[in-house]
Amino acid sequence: MNIDLNSDLGESFGAWRMGDDAAMLAVVSSANVACGFHAGDPAGILQTLRSAAAQGVCIGAHVSYPDLVGFGRRNMDMASADLQASVIYQIGALQGLATAAGTRVRYVKPHGALYNFIAHDARQAADVIAAVKAVDPSLGLVVLAGSALAGWAREAGLRTIEEAFADRGYRADGSLVPRNQPGAVLHDPEAVAARMLQLARDGTVTAVDGSVVRVAADSICVHGDSPGAVTMAQRVRERLTADGITIRSFMDAA
Amino acid sequence: MNIDLNSDLGESFGAWRMGDDAAMLAVVSSANVACGFHAGDPAGILQTLRSAAAQGVCIGAHVSYPDLVGFGRRNMDMASADLQASVIYQIGALQGLATAAGTRVRYVKPHGALYNFIAHDARQAADVIAAVKAVDPSLGLVVLAGSALAGWAREAGLRTIEEAFADRGYRADGSLVPRNQPGAVLHDPEAVAARMLQLARDGTVTAVDGSVVRVAADSICVHGDSPGAVTMAQRVRERLTADGITIRSFMDAA
Amino acid sequence: MNIDLNSDLGESFGAWRMGDDAAMLAVVSSANVACGFHAGDPAGILQTLRSAAAQGVCIGAHVSYPDLVGFGRRNMDMASADLQASVIYQIGALQGLATAAGTRVRYVKPHGALYNFIAHDARQAADVIAAVKAVDPSLGLVVLAGSALAGWAREAGLRTIEEAFADRGYRADGSLVPRNQPGAVLHDPEAVAARMLQLARDGTVTAVDGSVVRVAADSICVHGDSPGAVTMAQRVRERLTADGITIRSFMDAA
Amino acid sequence: MNIDLNSDLGESFGAWRMGDDAAMLAVVSSANVACGFHAGDPAGILQTLRSAAAQGVCIGAHVSYPDLVGFGRRNMDMASADLQASVIYQIGALQGLATAAGTRVRYVKPHGALYNFIAHDARQAADVIAAVKAVDPSLGLVVLAGSALAGWAREAGLRTIEEAFADRGYRADGSLVPRNQPGAVLHDPEAVAARMLQLARDGTVTAVDGSVVRVAADSICVHGDSPGAVTMAQRVRERLTADGITIRSFMDAA
Repeated sequence: MNIDLNSDLGESFGAWRMGDDAAMLAVVSSANVACGFHAGDPAGILQTLRSAAAQGVCIGAHVSYPDLVGFGRRNMDMASADLQASVIYQIGALQGLATAAGTRVRYVKPHGALYNFIAHDARQAADVIAAVKAVDPSLGLVVLAGSALAGWAREAGLRTIEEAFADRGYRADGSLVPRNQPGAVLHDPEAVAARMLQLARDGTVTAVDGSVVRVAADSICVHGDSPGAVTMAQRVRERLTADGITIRSFMDAA
Repeated sequence: MNIDLNSDLGESFGAWRMGDDAAMLAVVSSANVACGFHAGDPAGILQTLRSAAAQGVCIGAHVSYPDLVGFGRRNMDMASADLQASVIYQIGALQGLATAAGTRVRYVKPHGALYNFIAHDARQAADVIAAVKAVDPSLGLVVLAGSALAGWAREAGLRTIEEAFADRGYRADGSLVPRNQPGAVLHDPEAVAARMLQLARDGTVTAVDGSVVRVAADSICVHGDSPGAVTMAQRVRERLTADGITIRSFMDAA
Repeated sequence: MNIDLNSDLGESFGAWRMGDDAAMLAVVSSANVACGFHAGDPAGILQTLRSAAAQGVCIGAHVSYPDLVGFGRRNMDMASADLQASVIYQIGALQGLATAAGTRVRYVKPHGALYNFIAHDARQAADVIAAVKAVDPSLGLVVLAGSALAGWAREAGLRTIEEAFADRGYRADGSLVPRNQPGAVLHDPEAVAARMLQLARDGTVTAVDGSVVRVAADSICVHGDSPGAVTMAQRVRERLTADGITIRSFMDAA
Repeated sequence: MNIDLNSDLGESFGAWRMGDDAAMLAVVSSANVACGFHAGDPAGILQTLRSAAAQGVCIGAHVSYPDLVGFGRRNMDMASADLQASVIYQIGALQGLATAAGTRVRYVKPHGALYNFIAHDARQAADVIAAVKAVDPSLGLVVLAGSALAGWAREAGLRTIEEAFADRGYRADGSLVPRNQPGAVLHDPEAVAARMLQLARDGTVTAVDGSVVRVAADSICVHGDSPGAVTMAQRVRERLTADGITIRSFMDAA
């Protein structure tokens, strides 16, 4: 039995540090690497890619709206031609750096506002799907588990990876508890680890209302942007492996 | 007998237009396409790449210092790690867009201040050479004819293309007349076309002092940033082809 | 009798040119000068301000979302703290440059997507109003004639200037014909000039359905981004002045 | 007896944190606030200005080359028109935000590569001086103690503040030990505090060769970019005030 752990990396920018890439590369099997549009400068990205390659971690392009100061977290009504080309540009840039690091880009994960928006917006979702296919149709696409995007991507023929979030609460319908509501974010590493074990074993999570809901996830997203987050991610990994579950990239899984 | 004509393309940015890419793609055999650091946005670059592909024009990555507002024309003392990664990033981004356009990147040409500086600066030249090799060692590198960089690139094993400038005056030692001196820039299309014919035929140009100097050029750079420049480029092409010289990419030449 | 003519200026950026500022400064009484967020670099803005000062043209800050590549034309869901501070930053930057040019900023006009969005969005409108008041409550605010923003700005105590668009069609309710519908944009300079004379004289325009609708405008926006646009703007000015109407800034009018 | 302590603040950018502004505002009398060209986004700058205003800390514009990814630490050969206008733009932007924060900009301090370069480069120094005078000739200019710039600024009529660096070693001629040489940076808070007491009391520092050298400094620059740096800055302040020296802005000193 195996599952993937993914995390956002390469998010430093110039003189500014973010996250502990070294620590997280020892935890995850998949690294969503920033491509310069919401975070990441070329030299920093290359360094992260080299570390990921050395650790055998699978690499994904963490593509975003072009919004450094907003960290890609603001909705932006990009025209299709702009969005498609921007996604292609970012994937290509990361492919170039990955080649220089002796590795390669295996999948794409949209970031921030783009991630949330295309989970349900058909037009921009189609743009991202078209962009991925235009560069390399063998790339995987990581999406919110149970989202409309999952269906669209699969129909388009993309290898589609549905992901759950380790530190987020779920509602009875399998959707995430919105961030402005109680129970949206979980803070106890042990509880989170136990939840993710249940997810990996049974394909279920316990929702905020106590009901048990099915969440079919190929990957679990863990964060590394604070010391507490790193600890939680490590605890999730320990718990899963202690239970005999292999942490392995979805791209390596058969 | 054949020679290459190259020009800088894809230099529009967002709402701002620059140059007449459509006209120039009918003139040149090689397109130095901006990669977003001095000019070019993803959608505009992709459009230029599609046109170039349709015309069968060979594509190069016109890499630059990161300086949009300065159009890459200002010297910048980038550290080696930053310069190398920035060049790799740009080549990769263009490769991604080229793949989406059904074509591919064949060579690299440094732009503006980077072009001029690495013509003689060993450290930054080594950085650019290392970057090109790290992405794809089969890429050509376009350099100033007779520059120190030509030697360094060749020693490093890169396919090195030396280029002359159609509208620039030369000194008796084969170097360009500096822009702040008389005779630096030529304006008469007929005279320029005749000079380039001599260059292609005999491998010589007539210097500002009247002497005839050897310039071994594999390619001629023509500009397209004004209606007059386009006319001059067209005249150069007409004159060369009228004389039986084939305009052909250096990457296709045996 | 007098009216104001305003136009967007200072929209070149680095090596890229846009518009004919010199020509337009001879036409308009108010210059909406870009502040660097959608267009304009410091040196270019300063040059435009110097020309405006020399011509006695009133200066406004043309504030925008931070989106150079999108020219400020894309909606962006900026948080209030970010939007307020960004508007203040832009006004301040233009004030600094205006001081250096021997003139000063008299009003603010939101640009592009921000202009259209706050015409009806109460939250972002409140942010822009708060920003203007925080810098200088004596600044005017130029808004779409008849918009909700006009009311909000007036209630907030700002000197509020309602503007009409010379080259746009109007509907029977006084709103603009949307750009994707027939009659949205007018192209005949004579017809446009005649319409603006009617607007200045009678406070009415003829709508697309032939009805005459009241549009209370303190200012008319004319464009200068193409030779045809400049000609149209000149024609509007000629027609108004020939009829005895004085072209004068709303900030100078009593 | 009094002296000024200054530090670089407002250097966070979007989602990225840098330094501990709150802690440093309790230590210094002058805050060099980033203006968005090397660091600082509008909302973050405004927050820092509000805190500085609340603490009664004097505010300076920390102007830089336009180079976010390089944090303004890379030399850039900007043309005079561009450099002047860029400095004016930054001062103006900060003035706008300072007004909104209920305070005002009192001085200018060049940052990073610009600081080091204009300490000895006459052309760019003249550009910065001209820019400051064009916005507000009553602004002070903070410069490296003993630099050529100090003389140029004073000749130009600017109120010129010479500064020493708390954590840097000096050579027998009063210049800083270059960063790539032993003794360039000091790490012991007690030793640094004792040195700065000597500087404030006697106007001297002990150079790396043991000689006592005169350094006439109106201000001492302390850093706050790490917990250790904050501790050192606090220790310098404590030592000076314990000895009866008042920490006071040079702009308030008679």
